[in-house]
Amino acid sequence: MPDPRRPLRIALLGCGVVGTEVARVLTGDADELAQRVGAPIELVGIAVRREGRRRDLDVPDDLFTTDAMALVARGDLDVVIEVIGGIEPARGLILAALENGASVVTANKALLAEDGATLYEAAEKAERDLYYEAAVAGAIPIVRPLSDSLAGDRVTRVLGIVNGTTNFILDAMSTTGAGFNDALDEAQRLGYAEADPTADVEGFDAAAKAAILAGLAFHTRVHISDVHREGITDVTAADVRSAAEIGSVVKLLAICELGPSGEVSARVHPAMIPDSHPLASVRGAYNAVFVESEGAGQLMFYGPGAGGAPTASAVLGDVVSVARHRLAGVRGAGETVHAQHEIVPIGRARTRYHVAIDVDDRPGVLSAVAQAFAANDVSIKTVRQEGHGDDAQLVVVTHEAEDAALSATIDRLRDLDMVRGVSSVMRVEGVA
Amino acid sequence: MPDPRRPLRIALLGCGVVGTEVARVLTGDADELAQRVGAPIELVGIAVRREGRRRDLDVPDDLFTTDAMALVARGDLDVVIEVIGGIEPARGLILAALENGASVVTANKALLAEDGATLYEAAEKAERDLYYEAAVAGAIPIVRPLSDSLAGDRVTRVLGIVNGTTNFILDAMSTTGAGFNDALDEAQRLGYAEADPTADVEGFDAAAKAAILAGLAFHTRVHISDVHREGITDVTAADVRSAAEIGSVVKLLAICELGPSGEVSARVHPAMIPDSHPLASVRGAYNAVFVESEGAGQLMFYGPGAGGAPTASAVLGDVVSVARHRLAGVRGAGETVHAQHEIVPIGRARTRYHVAIDVDDRPGVLSAVAQAFAANDVSIKTVRQEGHGDDAQLVVVTHEAEDAALSATIDRLRDLDMVRGVSSVMRVEGVA
Repeated sequence: MPDPRRPLRIALLGCGVVGTEVARVLTGDADELAQRVGAPIELVGIAVRREGRRRDLDVPDDLFTTDAMALVARGDLDVVIEVIGGIEPARGLILAALENGASVVTANKALLAEDGATLYEAAEKAERDLYYEAAVAGAIPIVRPLSDSLAGDRVTRVLGIVNGTTNFILDAMSTTGAGFNDALDEAQRLGYAEADPTADVEGFDAAAKAAILAGLAFHTRVHISDVHREGITDVTAADVRSAAEIGSVVKLLAICELGPSGEVSARVHPAMIPDSHPLASVRGAYNAVFVESEGAGQLMFYGPGAGGAPTASAVLGDVVSVARHRLAGVRGAGETVHAQHEIVPIGRARTRYHVAIDVDDRPGVLSAVAQAFAANDVSIKTVRQEGHGDDAQLVVVTHEAEDAALSATIDRLRDLDMVRGVSSVMRVEGVA
Repeated sequence: MPDPRRPLRIALLGCGVVGTEVARVLTGDADELAQRVGAPIELVGIAVRREGRRRDLDVPDDLFTTDAMALVARGDLDVVIEVIGGIEPARGLILAALENGASVVTANKALLAEDGATLYEAAEKAERDLYYEAAVAGAIPIVRPLSDSLAGDRVTRVLGIVNGTTNFILDAMSTTGAGFNDALDEAQRLGYAEADPTADVEGFDAAAKAAILAGLAFHTRVHISDVHREGITDVTAADVRSAAEIGSVVKLLAICELGPSGEVSARVHPAMIPDSHPLASVRGAYNAVFVESEGAGQLMFYGPGAGGAPTASAVLGDVVSVARHRLAGVRGAGETVHAQHEIVPIGRARTRYHVAIDVDDRPGVLSAVAQAFAANDVSIKTVRQEGHGDDAQLVVVTHEAEDAALSATIDRLRDLDMVRGVSSVMRVEGVA
């Protein structure tokens, strides 16, 4: 237990958008944070990649160092905050921080989804806290609600809009009728998408968050490779219009489910959700996580999913929690992975589908198409014809079916003479 | 610290709708809860008011007792769950439980808002936990987010729909055009309102929650008598129509604000909020709490605000947290009331107003009305005339003004010859 008369020593690794904001609050609001913690706090070092970069921060120059490893190895730190991101050097630094007796607060979703097990085990061995509220959905409190508030309940499903960039793009497509590329350009122009948008638009960022959410929700370990991932680059203006025709919107969803036999699935893909669903009204770059559980029923957590100040809010909440524990000589609840759920592949996920099929405009086509669904035990809820002649299209919405059965249906449809092509397949989620 | 080989002993006080569900999960899902806690748990007693009542519970008869005080005074309890409600005997039982070494989980908003200070102090003295997630907004995790997740941020405003009965009634009025009494009848018929609906429709329930929320949000003590309270019994179908005309809906809001000079206000009253505000789409008996903070920006927490299973979910989340602490021989973060904020009366609250004034339909009336506002420094944003002749009405929406100034304006309006009456005054909230 630290000497209560000395301040709690905090080191910050990384000083980009989030780190700068964290440092600003740790120094500027130190007195208020000290009251929340119950002891003074002191920012003793900031590890940066390059010296000399102009930072908009009122802190002494000698706090900055380019030797992050030397900083975490000081041996007298109470809390290390990691906001560098990526796998290395973040992993090595976090492990060194724990080994040297510090608790760790991180916003690193990629590392947690890739190798959370190593971090948790190191925290357990070192008897220190590993907190990461900022890793999922930015400022939105979702880690504590899942790990603590819902600890006496059984979560059955998590549906999350956990990537602001893709939500901004899809919202823009829905509002303006633009195609993906135009909406991406606009997002880049406004700073909502990076110059290389791959991590966002291909769903990698959301998949990392899905792995973390599934682990928390179902008390089991889920690796990012367990998460089925599809991005939004193939979503067309026509898909967005089709969604509107069935009273829905297209969102990139992270979906974590606990099946009836205890099997867990985690997937990220674009999906149509009904306008009446609380997630449908999540606009722009906002995030939201919708949680279904046996006891609580339906809960939703909504807020900004990224940005310097919001992410810093989540980081600093963890810093206060960890510092309080430190002061009391205790630890918070660690990882609970008592449940050994089977992680099932996407083929066994069950949901509904919206399928647009370009067909010849002649008698018998509906019957042939319906037969392709029936042969794979995929039950049709609605079917309607759009257009005529060369533009004839059948739009089918199914009842719940296994993903593998739907894939087999699509293969069969593509083999039909009367089918000119399957122009769109999209899952439909959030239907009661 | 309890012997890790023996189960954690839990006693339940109260076995109504919530208590029955808590007992059902504690016994039926004991194995899963044990894994979450890290040790077995055992429900050792259930205090009820009357013996012999038929309860839909598969627990041994000898668990039931009518002597609650003897149960909490056993001296070997780890956790006492209080779901009796009301001030006494709940307060005496909670104090006795703490004195006898148990941690306490309660859903008792009335008691916390009336005498939370006594409970917190008793918990502090006994070095035990006092948890109460279920006391505000049922299943919605809001206590931990405010006390822990946002502990490194500065909350500036909380807007909550925290009473399901009144939200159901106002939603029904908005959807069907019904008046208050018809909507209340419907709510009673469907079980959303009690036979005596006073606590809900007069805003007492929401005011207790507002006191708790304000205390948590601003780290200061707020008593229920500090909360300005107006219910929804005077809300008319005309008010709801007026709201629709300005693109808004009427909601009963609990509003907690931190002013620019550190003053705190807490109030409960019906208000118009714009359709675009996330709270506007909270339908039926659902609750939601909208939080604004300096770092995180805007957050919203949404879910069922009442009911047996949802409330039990929140209670059981607390039970798991408290039991984990108990097992580790530690306590969670206690009350933080380091901030000594001034609690200001409603007169000093600042907001916008929607005022409907029945006027004579003749030249000069607008000028006279406008002068009444100007004389009290209340700036008018929009004014429009509705109806003609005997039905002539001026509808004024103001810019932000002090409540006292608006009251003075209304008094002055009522003195005007050309004003036949002020038919409606409602605050307008949630405007950017």
